[in-house]
Amino acid sequence: MAELFGGIEGGGTKFICALGTNTGEILAETRIPTTTPADTLSRCVDFFEEQATTFGNISAIGIASFGPLDPRLDSDKYGHILPTPKAGWSNADIVGTFKKAFDIPIGFDTDVNGAALGEWRWGAAEGLNNFVYLTIGTGVGGSAMINGELVHGLLHPEMGHISLVRQENDSAESVCPFHDDCFEGLTSGPAIENRWGKKADTLHTGHPAWEMEASYIARALRGFICTLSPERIVLGGGVMSQEHLFPLIRKKTLEELNGYVQSPQILEEINDYIVPVTLDGKAGILGAFLLGEYALKN
Amino acid sequence: MAELFGGIEGGGTKFICALGTNTGEILAETRIPTTTPADTLSRCVDFFEEQATTFGNISAIGIASFGPLDPRLDSDKYGHILPTPKAGWSNADIVGTFKKAFDIPIGFDTDVNGAALGEWRWGAAEGLNNFVYLTIGTGVGGSAMINGELVHGLLHPEMGHISLVRQENDSAESVCPFHDDCFEGLTSGPAIENRWGKKADTLHTGHPAWEMEASYIARALRGFICTLSPERIVLGGGVMSQEHLFPLIRKKTLEELNGYVQSPQILEEINDYIVPVTLDGKAGILGAFLLGEYALKN
Repeated sequence: MAELFGGIEGGGTKFICALGTNTGEILAETRIPTTTPADTLSRCVDFFEEQATTFGNISAIGIASFGPLDPRLDSDKYGHILPTPKAGWSNADIVGTFKKAFDIPIGFDTDVNGAALGEWRWGAAEGLNNFVYLTIGTGVGGSAMINGELVHGLLHPEMGHISLVRQENDSAESVCPFHDDCFEGLTSGPAIENRWGKKADTLHTGHPAWEMEASYIARALRGFICTLSPERIVLGGGVMSQEHLFPLIRKKTLEELNGYVQSPQILEEINDYIVPVTLDGKAGILGAFLLGEYALKN
Repeated sequence: MAELFGGIEGGGTKFICALGTNTGEILAETRIPTTTPADTLSRCVDFFEEQATTFGNISAIGIASFGPLDPRLDSDKYGHILPTPKAGWSNADIVGTFKKAFDIPIGFDTDVNGAALGEWRWGAAEGLNNFVYLTIGTGVGGSAMINGELVHGLLHPEMGHISLVRQENDSAESVCPFHDDCFEGLTSGPAIENRWGKKADTLHTGHPAWEMEASYIARALRGFICTLSPERIVLGGGVMSQEHLFPLIRKKTLEELNGYVQSPQILEEINDYIVPVTLDGKAGILGAFLLGEYALKN
């Protein structure tokens, strides 16, 4: 029988817990509302204890969590949430809680790195050693794999906070409390709602919101292409469920680059270079199984 | 005796060739003007043949070249210069020329990756697994090491071509023929000269050029920090020989990030986070020796 892994996709509104295998099978799943760390995490622990009773021993648990967080194994704060405006969660010791409950390896990384791993193993980035995964929704986050490994560096990337040149006709305020000009502040779902006075998913496909949205995203993609030279860019998140954005973004990204990067993958195969996610919201939890698998191996 | 390596730093105006060791010793060096590929490269070949007569067998040659170039080992165009405005050099087969002359491994990468390797082994990025190296001079180029390996991806990064939000009081034209808003087009030595009507090195330290220059560079660094989360940023090139820029850049980078990235290395140790090169122009040739060493190992 295949080895069993626990996976957690920890978000600001809910924690998704699942039991599954490293072949991408989900055997059981539950959703736990995000309240206090003590309550939320103990309910997660309960779930895995129950699953172990039903299905047998769990080899490892992987956690893909909202951040900011500390994923550095050699740090005092490893496995903790860092100071965050989310009430009660600053310095919450996520990994420590599971280590106390289970004597098995616990993997830990950002939610966006988890989703990127899922898309890499089973989805839109399958088989690539260098790619960028972006989620554009309530917030904007990014993950990069370089030479087959996820980028962590100091802590983890914060791709939603690069600065973007404003469109001339855009005077809307950024919705980011830190930056008046950042990717997240100008293009997230709340940014669209703030700019146009309506929720993004109620704007018709011909609304000028989308032309502007695509322009900003293309500008950001140019930055990531020039910096990371990825083999593919995978776009997910609520805003990117608007499929009509993809042709616009592809066209504008080519305009932004203006022929400078002489790669056939970009110049001739843009439809296969900037692509949507394919795991339909399951990338995070499947990636969490992989985080568990990695923790087991290391 | 230590193994001997040939190194070439191939630039638009000159090719520096040197014989040395992988401990960073330079035994002989020459500078060859960049004319046609046939003439320039045959003079490089002559240099190494002479050195081999004097010092003995050369184990490998590493080439750190101007670009755009193709560094992908599995590509038909591996070792070639890609289409370039530089007369005569489009499609020049650099590696092939040396392979014909010498039956030894030939390493090949960009000039900026070569310099980054030099600074990593012996200079300002010693011992780090994640850093960004930027050269700001006649052009702007960047290199990143992630998890101990240089970023290549599709071809190689083109960090000088990310877009930057313009300063309000800057109406100077970009000097980049491809982009009206890019890092290189707004901050290279020629961009400074174009904007202020004087060569950068003739502008006194209190000139407003430097405040603006530092603002643009800080904006770019914010982008690289948010995208790559480097452990350090090393700045070199002619423009960065203006040492008074460093305190300005550090201050403005902190302002750009506005406390968002919660890393003590940035928040508390910025003087050790954004640093000048230390190899004083030798990074490229020393890095080329390492490219030779890597070619020998692989």
